[in-house]
Amino acid sequence: MPMLRQDPLTGEWVIIATERARRPETFASKKEERVSPPPRVENCPFCPGNEHLTPPEVLIYEKNGGETKEKDLPHSASWNLRVIPNKFPALERDPNAPRTMPSSRCELFLSHQGYGVHEVIIETPWHNRHLADLSIKELEMVLKSFQERTVALARDEQLRYVQIFRNHRQEAGASIEHPHCQLLALPYIPPLLNKEYTRSHDFYLEEGRCLLCSLLEKEEASGERVILQNENFIAYIPFAAPLPFSTWIAPREHYSSLEVSPEGWERDLAPLLKEFLTRLSQKLEDPPYNLYLHVAPLRSSSLSYYHWHMEIIPKLTIVAGWEMATGTYINVSRPEEAASFLKTPEKEVIEALKR
Amino acid sequence: MPMLRQDPLTGEWVIIATERARRPETFASKKEERVSPPPRVENCPFCPGNEHLTPPEVLIYEKNGGETKEKDLPHSASWNLRVIPNKFPALERDPNAPRTMPSSRCELFLSHQGYGVHEVIIETPWHNRHLADLSIKELEMVLKSFQERTVALARDEQLRYVQIFRNHRQEAGASIEHPHCQLLALPYIPPLLNKEYTRSHDFYLEEGRCLLCSLLEKEEASGERVILQNENFIAYIPFAAPLPFSTWIAPREHYSSLEVSPEGWERDLAPLLKEFLTRLSQKLEDPPYNLYLHVAPLRSSSLSYYHWHMEIIPKLTIVAGWEMATGTYINVSRPEEAASFLKTPEKEVIEALKR
Repeated sequence: MPMLRQDPLTGEWVIIATERARRPETFASKKEERVSPPPRVENCPFCPGNEHLTPPEVLIYEKNGGETKEKDLPHSASWNLRVIPNKFPALERDPNAPRTMPSSRCELFLSHQGYGVHEVIIETPWHNRHLADLSIKELEMVLKSFQERTVALARDEQLRYVQIFRNHRQEAGASIEHPHCQLLALPYIPPLLNKEYTRSHDFYLEEGRCLLCSLLEKEEASGERVILQNENFIAYIPFAAPLPFSTWIAPREHYSSLEVSPEGWERDLAPLLKEFLTRLSQKLEDPPYNLYLHVAPLRSSSLSYYHWHMEIIPKLTIVAGWEMATGTYINVSRPEEAASFLKTPEKEVIEALKR
Repeated sequence: MPMLRQDPLTGEWVIIATERARRPETFASKKEERVSPPPRVENCPFCPGNEHLTPPEVLIYEKNGGETKEKDLPHSASWNLRVIPNKFPALERDPNAPRTMPSSRCELFLSHQGYGVHEVIIETPWHNRHLADLSIKELEMVLKSFQERTVALARDEQLRYVQIFRNHRQEAGASIEHPHCQLLALPYIPPLLNKEYTRSHDFYLEEGRCLLCSLLEKEEASGERVILQNENFIAYIPFAAPLPFSTWIAPREHYSSLEVSPEGWERDLAPLLKEFLTRLSQKLEDPPYNLYLHVAPLRSSSLSYYHWHMEIIPKLTIVAGWEMATGTYINVSRPEEAASFLKTPEKEVIEALKR
């Protein structure tokens, strides 16, 4: 029998399509047609030696003793990570922009100057090393940069929310091959976040505790959808996952944003994230994916009702007419089956993690 | 300067990315790699002669004097259109299913037996004739079948909404090549519709009239986003279109659903829809698209605040991390420019419409 499951954070019903369910291994993408890129690409604007092709960085993690002599090779780049303004920004800061967003129920055509910040986080000098291939130390730097940029942008009171996201491979929307993620700082709260805040707040008023804390407790107790966990983080496939292998990674202790996360949070997350991405890559043949954070609004200090987390959505099916029309999903993979498939590491995963 | 525009029906902000805007003609898809399918495919379950491969039809439009003698050829099929139950339904009807959807703010894992109906509308016996290639008469039949099935399903009081949608070509999610659309009848109101109803209702209470009626009046007056219109329908690109070339087609008079649409509505819509789809196909090289209807809930009789319409979303860009994370869009094409590009028919369009 088909089944409907409600996403507790958004209130939306997901159809878990048992009749047309596919076995986890059938989602593996076809790898054979792909060409592995080289460590450095001559005309890639994000590769070392081409720093002049991008706007000056707003944040850089320099290498200790990094040399630029052999600057055409990633291992001799002077930096580990650079954050730069997007050359073709979706939003821009203009000191003359109006301070507040317009709002009116009766205005038919409401528009607003697109105030905001659009940045690119170049995760590594290596053109061919994606998140799963980075060392734990390098991955920590990527996570740290998310926090540093969020804290820096929070100083601008016109900005209300920072959305960090990553498109892995062209099929998931990456227009530049070099490993990077993006950050968009917005003058408003995006609707999906709004929904999560509202539902979490309602739950908090009724139950006196955080909705995601309660969910994590249940997930841990049953374990059937948990993929991985360590002392401080847990990776699991939610009960009402909208798409096959959609995974959430959340801190086990309650923190509402990176702004209020404790010193060293990235050291706890990095090894778990690396292991998750390595398993995903090995078991589903390096699928395209989207990764993003959901956090509290900027400057909201520590909210007791909202719990930040990361979502990773492999792109294994096509979002089509049904999803566009209704804003909901038909998941052709049972969350419990998908989690169990990713739970057991294979020999290659263990080998890859040793490297 | 980038610009934010608010969708009046959902209240959501769309970023119109002027800095990274693309010229309309750059969206044309690459046609050369495609192989045109034959008029009939031996093992296609939707082709004439293979009717036994599908469940028995729930609606059939028979051909006047149609013969089944040469049943392997589409022109001699005995039918023009068949509606059949989906062999792998996302939802099913079970007389023992609970009558109402569960609802609870504090229940963490809420699920429900997936009650509903999933049907396929086989639009034509021809394997290689898509909506734009059908005659006006045939297109009328497709539209009429939407209405007939909606009216029939409305008799089941457990169903609340009928979602009709079409995925054109594999890239837009069509898993079977033979021209068809799908219908899912649901025991709940999908969230996007919910949002449209709520905003329209708020507007109605405040202004005393229908939001879409007001919008259509403004669109007609300015004309800058109107692509086509006839006496009873209008096709235009909305002010805050979420994706390049997203088009709405709406009746100019106020009707809230197909259930309450007047006799002959499909005769007014068919020629306009054919012309729109022909232009889209000619000017953007037959792009993949999703098409769907937004209507009032079943059995809601004539709602003065909601106005049904069709949305056509060509799949020209990749929905990526930003859209998944926020539930909003960055449109890399200005609606006015896209509308103007589709406004003038080219010689081939005029020729195609004569055929």
